[in-house]
Amino acid sequence: MREPIAFLGTLDAQEEADFLAALAQALPEETIRPFRTLGEAERQATRIAIVANPDPAEVALLPNLAWIQSLWAGVERLVRDLGTGAVPIVRLVDPELARTMAEAVLAWTYYLQRDMPAYRRQQEAGIWRQLAYRPPAEIRVGLLGLGVLGSAAAERLVQAGFPVAAWSRSVKALPPGVTGFTGPEGLPALLATSDIVVCLLPLTAATRGLLDAARLAALKPGAGLINFGRGPIVATDALLAALDAGHLSHAVLDVFDAEPLPPDSPLWRHPGVTVLPHISGPTTPASAAAVVAGNVRAYRETGRIPAAVDVARGY
Amino acid sequence: MREPIAFLGTLDAQEEADFLAALAQALPEETIRPFRTLGEAERQATRIAIVANPDPAEVALLPNLAWIQSLWAGVERLVRDLGTGAVPIVRLVDPELARTMAEAVLAWTYYLQRDMPAYRRQQEAGIWRQLAYRPPAEIRVGLLGLGVLGSAAAERLVQAGFPVAAWSRSVKALPPGVTGFTGPEGLPALLATSDIVVCLLPLTAATRGLLDAARLAALKPGAGLINFGRGPIVATDALLAALDAGHLSHAVLDVFDAEPLPPDSPLWRHPGVTVLPHISGPTTPASAAAVVAGNVRAYRETGRIPAAVDVARGY
Repeated sequence: MREPIAFLGTLDAQEEADFLAALAQALPEETIRPFRTLGEAERQATRIAIVANPDPAEVALLPNLAWIQSLWAGVERLVRDLGTGAVPIVRLVDPELARTMAEAVLAWTYYLQRDMPAYRRQQEAGIWRQLAYRPPAEIRVGLLGLGVLGSAAAERLVQAGFPVAAWSRSVKALPPGVTGFTGPEGLPALLATSDIVVCLLPLTAATRGLLDAARLAALKPGAGLINFGRGPIVATDALLAALDAGHLSHAVLDVFDAEPLPPDSPLWRHPGVTVLPHISGPTTPASAAAVVAGNVRAYRETGRIPAAVDVARGY
Repeated sequence: MREPIAFLGTLDAQEEADFLAALAQALPEETIRPFRTLGEAERQATRIAIVANPDPAEVALLPNLAWIQSLWAGVERLVRDLGTGAVPIVRLVDPELARTMAEAVLAWTYYLQRDMPAYRRQQEAGIWRQLAYRPPAEIRVGLLGLGVLGSAAAERLVQAGFPVAAWSRSVKALPPGVTGFTGPEGLPALLATSDIVVCLLPLTAATRGLLDAARLAALKPGAGLINFGRGPIVATDALLAALDAGHLSHAVLDVFDAEPLPPDSPLWRHPGVTVLPHISGPTTPASAAAVVAGNVRAYRETGRIPAAVDVARGY
């Protein structure tokens, strides 16, 4: 009988049960066992770990891992916890995630374009006032990040009639209708010409604090910001100052320096901030399990490890 | 010299100036004059009136009108004020309006699908909780009305992955991917199977009070309602009761029995209601003027009056 696959995560009981059920259904030929149920011999034998925010101390008790499959798309915490030179980490590249994230980008872009926060404030104050309508053609959306998620988002925005520009670290193929900016010198140009900036970047040494006070000051006056990437990419204090100064009109934040967002964070109560509990790109157990099953089967058949995270780049 | 075109409306000074400027630019060969500036002889000579909520007493002082061009798509007030047997009324059929209205339907459908009202309430209460994500494929949208606006909205929703059904008074050609329901017997079937109902109907004798307590009760438990048609189509008291009972989850209302919505309306403060100040399908002076110019020129060249409102049907 084949060695078990270890499942490691700090999930609540219901989430763990949902993921294990979805994985069992997607991989009926495998035995997938929570780490805590594995004996010493099984731990020695384990070649594959499927993880969701695992305890690094538990990962260290699996000495013969060939690779680690994350259930999340973002693996910066895993890379930090497990370090370089460790077992290859495979992030979840879920085609359904690109669709849900692109949909989230379009939905929350409409939220800003259609002035939903301002109409909400007007309703609270009992004010009946029509704000000037700005058609998509007049609202430039600037995407930070042009990976699988950024490309899918760009395509949806272009379809909806928004002029789209995208910034990426290195030169990339551009989706039709998208203007490209590259490298450190391209960033101020994108920021200065975008009415709505959408961050879809991974968190790396190069992106931490990328949107600091100076770069936020480079945004167009009245611009909106959507952060669906990672919290520490945006300097929170600088963001609050830019909102208070009226330089930014509104921020939609789905990611934060600490999650859940601590109760004492001023972001909760700022009228210019929409706080979302990390829901822009939901991973469903079924869609995640289907992707994991494809990776595991390819490994069993060929012995080749799926494309892993570049630990130096961080994604 | 050709007789002037009369402009009649109860607009504020800025709005009137904006419309007159746009009309002058679109029709440089015509003289378009506010009613109050016309002398007796000019009133007698006037053949065309362009109107925006006109005073019926002023319209009556133009005895030789061939036709009246409304600057609004909805003309029920005009039909009521001017009555049957009066001068033909031409409503504004603005192709740009179909685009902006379809965009509004998609934007506010995302608002409900992505649980924006619930996340807003959670933020106000400082609650970090991920609500179950429902992809568009699992949310059936039911459109009431399948004219130019309804068809454009259906197309956008289908593109975005929502299953769409549409109800119309009479059998109509269905956009690809749309299920059709027709006549009085088709309405309960549509209501019972829709997760979000979007009203785009004109106000007529047949649609006034259409969504009464009985028909709201026929909605799926937990359904959302978007009313972008006309206020009196939905019975406000019955709607509030359905929201309070938890039978409806949320209502997005852009139109009301009286507009502006009176300050003492309970709709302003109901947590299950989003109040919008009639902004779903904005008419911009430029886009309206372009359509009016086409109608006026066709009339000048052929003597034929543009397709007018059927006063008996009311649209």
